[in-house]
This record gives sequence, C-alpha cells and structure tokens, in this order.
Amino acid sequence: MENKDLIKKIIAFREERNWEQFHSIKDLCLGLSIEVSELQEFFLWKTNEQINSIKIEKKEHIADELADIFIFLAYLSNDLGIDLDKAIVTKIDKNDDKYPIEKSRGSNKKYNEL
Amino acid sequence: MENKDLIKKIIAFREERNWEQFHSIKDLCLGLSIEVSELQEFFLWKTNEQINSIKIEKKEHIADELADIFIFLAYLSNDLGIDLDKAIVTKIDKNDDKYPIEKSRGSNKKYNEL
Amino acid sequence: MENKDLIKKIIAFREERNWEQFHSIKDLCLGLSIEVSELQEFFLWKTNEQINSIKIEKKEHIADELADIFIFLAYLSNDLGIDLDKAIVTKIDKNDDKYPIEKSRGSNKKYNEL
Amino acid sequence: MENKDLIKKIIAFREERNWEQFHSIKDLCLGLSIEVSELQEFFLWKTNEQINSIKIEKKEHIADELADIFIFLAYLSNDLGIDLDKAIVTKIDKNDDKYPIEKSRGSNKKYNEL
Repeated sequence: MENKDLIKKIIAFREERNWEQFHSIKDLCLGLSIEVSELQEFFLWKTNEQINSIKIEKKEHIADELADIFIFLAYLSNDLGIDLDKAIVTKIDKNDDKYPIEKSRGSNKKYNEL
Repeated sequence: MENKDLIKKIIAFREERNWEQFHSIKDLCLGLSIEVSELQEFFLWKTNEQINSIKIEKKEHIADELADIFIFLAYLSNDLGIDLDKAIVTKIDKNDDKYPIEKSRGSNKKYNEL
Repeated sequence: MENKDLIKKIIAFREERNWEQFHSIKDLCLGLSIEVSELQEFFLWKTNEQINSIKIEKKEHIADELADIFIFLAYLSNDLGIDLDKAIVTKIDKNDDKYPIEKSRGSNKKYNEL
Repeated sequence: MENKDLIKKIIAFREERNWEQFHSIKDLCLGLSIEVSELQEFFLWKTNEQINSIKIEKKEHIADELADIFIFLAYLSNDLGIDLDKAIVTKIDKNDDKYPIEKSRGSNKKYNEL
C-alpha cells in the first residue's frame, strides 16, 4: 500500500470526527511520544529471551502500537505540509552520504565520529 | 511509493553496513524516542505564530526528522515480524469502532470516557 | 527533605527486592521516558481551561507520576555515580552563564541564538 | 541540600528571566521528554562495556542532563502545585504496598501480574 493512501484514510478519519481543532503541532508531538512509550512498555526490564516470547505472544498489541505511531506521523506530515514518502527517500540518500559503507560498516559510531 | 519498498530500502541500507548487531529492540525503542524529541525541539516554547514560520523556514530539517521516525518504525516492524501496512489498516478499523462518529465528533475525550 | 535521603530510601527499596539485576542503564532510560509519557497523558488534547481543572481533580495521580520520574532519576544518578544535588547546583550556575539576565529576559531563544 | 531549596533556586532563575510566560504545562512536558532523550543519546547502540567507559569519560555531561531533568521536574511540581518531597515519600510507600518484598523479590513482573 502507498503511504499517500494510508495518510488519506487517516486524515479522513479525523475530518469525520472534527478533531483537527485539538491537533495542534505540540499536541501531536506529545501524542507521538506517548505512543512510543506504549511500545517501549512491552520490553521494559525484559531479557532478550523474554522479548523473543513477547514478540510472538503480544504480536497483535505490538502491531497496534506501531500503527499508532504511524498514525501520528501521518497527522504531523499532513499538518506540516510535508510529503512523507519524498522525505523518507531524501533522508535515506542523505544517510548514504553521511555513512559511507566502507567507513561505517560494523561500527556504532555517529557520522561525526567516523 | 509502496511502504513495503521503502522498508526494503531501509533494511538494505542496514545490511550493507552490518548494523543489525547494534539494533536490539530496546535500542530501536530508545532511538525512536530520541528522534521524536529531535522533532519536538523545533516547537518547544514557541507560540502558534512562531510555529507557522518555523514550519516554512525549517521545512527541510523537519522533513528529515519525520523521515528518521519512519526509518526507526521500519526497523522495528521488520525486526518484530510485523506487516506495517496491515497493522495500520487494522488499527484504523479498530479506531473506527472505538470512536463511533456520532459519539466522538468534536470531543477530546478518550474512548473509555465517551 | 534532602535529595540524598530520598535517594537512599529508593535504593534501599530496590535492594530489598533484588531488582538491580533488571536495572541496566538502558532500561532505566526507557523506564524514565515511559514515566514522562504517563505524565503527558493527563494533558494531551486538553485546553488550558481543562488543564486547570485536571491539575486539581487529578492532583494525587499527577503527584504520583512526578514522584515516579524522580525515582528513575534517583536510580540513574546512583548507578551512574553522580551526586544529583551537586549536579543540579552546577547546572544552575552554568545556565546562569549561558542565559545572562539582560540578554535572555523575556526571550524564548536558545542561548546560541541570543 | 534540601529539595525545597533547590526548587526555590530554579524558580528564582526563571523569575529573573521572566520565562513563566513560555512555561505552559504542555511545553514543560515536551521539554522534559527532550531532556530525557538527551540523556538516552549517550547510551544508544552502546555495549555494556562501552557504557562503563562512557559513564566515566562523559560524567560531567551526563550529570548536566540529569540536572536538566530535575530542573523540569522542579518547574512542573511548582506549576502544578505539588510538593515534590511529599509526593516522592507517598509514592515510595505506595510502591511498598504494590510490591511486597516476599512476592516481588527477584521478579521483573508488574504488580498486576504478581
């Protein structure tokens, strides 16, 4: 599916409920970080082994959290006038330049430490 | 562009650099919340009027942050074995049930308070 | 009360439960951002007027969230070998230098934009 | 040093700069999560061994981030009319009840799973 079409669906959902009035940029930012924390909660304190079980047992709930994060990203990109697909492709290209394969391969350093 | 293809590009980028070894689920969660904060920083303390200017003046930088958030979402969905497109469509349907239009229209209440 | 004494109480609580084994620095960081989100949830989508009511109606719950944030800060400062009181006093002094009163008064600019 | 006195110093710093006007509860929440991310950045992607070195090498910078988190907590507790010391002591007592030593010792389960 295209991001564009997913975003259209998400914006239509909001319009039908007349929720734009609550969606200030700051609130969308807050909402986004709340959703990220809901994802994090599944893994807090857990060992790698436990995480492997949780991935399977709670797959549907985890999928919901990933979707919620995307939904906030959709609202933000729409309200900020940003073409998300184009932004992603551009950023992957920039990262290609910042992290040349030969220099960054197998390294956990930031680009400015390479 | 299809979400699936964007995610493929992002995973290929990682494979070329052999970065999977650093990408534990907890690290990806931390990375995701760091990217969200980098987006938030553009708007902190700002008035609505200032936000309207920032949206235009810093559009390219803001687009990069949105893209970074998507990139982490792509890694997480891949590593958690979740089909992101399907998760989003499923979640929109669930939200449709949780927030019936007639009950939730114009309201900022949570579904369990409606 | 002294921060030192609060931190001692918090560390004793943990020792009695033998929870140090789960408290990696990354987990404490994750836990801290989860607690911050729990605080944020009280205010998401709310108008200023609604926030003024929530402050009063949910005071006890909000106080619990602030305390939880402090508890994680206590664990982190202990485990990172940092004297929290000294760190705070030092940082206030640094901020005094970064934001001289005459330059920063009434301004929402960052120190490097002043 | 008493928490109360630290908070007084922090509020006095703000008053001298007339920054209350920017400190809405939502902005303080955003600021708090930005500071948490700045702390997280020190540890992202790092191995346990690397974290042990970073703790020492970047101690001063890490201490600054912990202090910044406390500073936001101080603003929030002041503006929400909450006595932070009392909130912390109350919460430790609640946690004592939620996590009885005999049941929670050595376990990473949440209180509602014990």
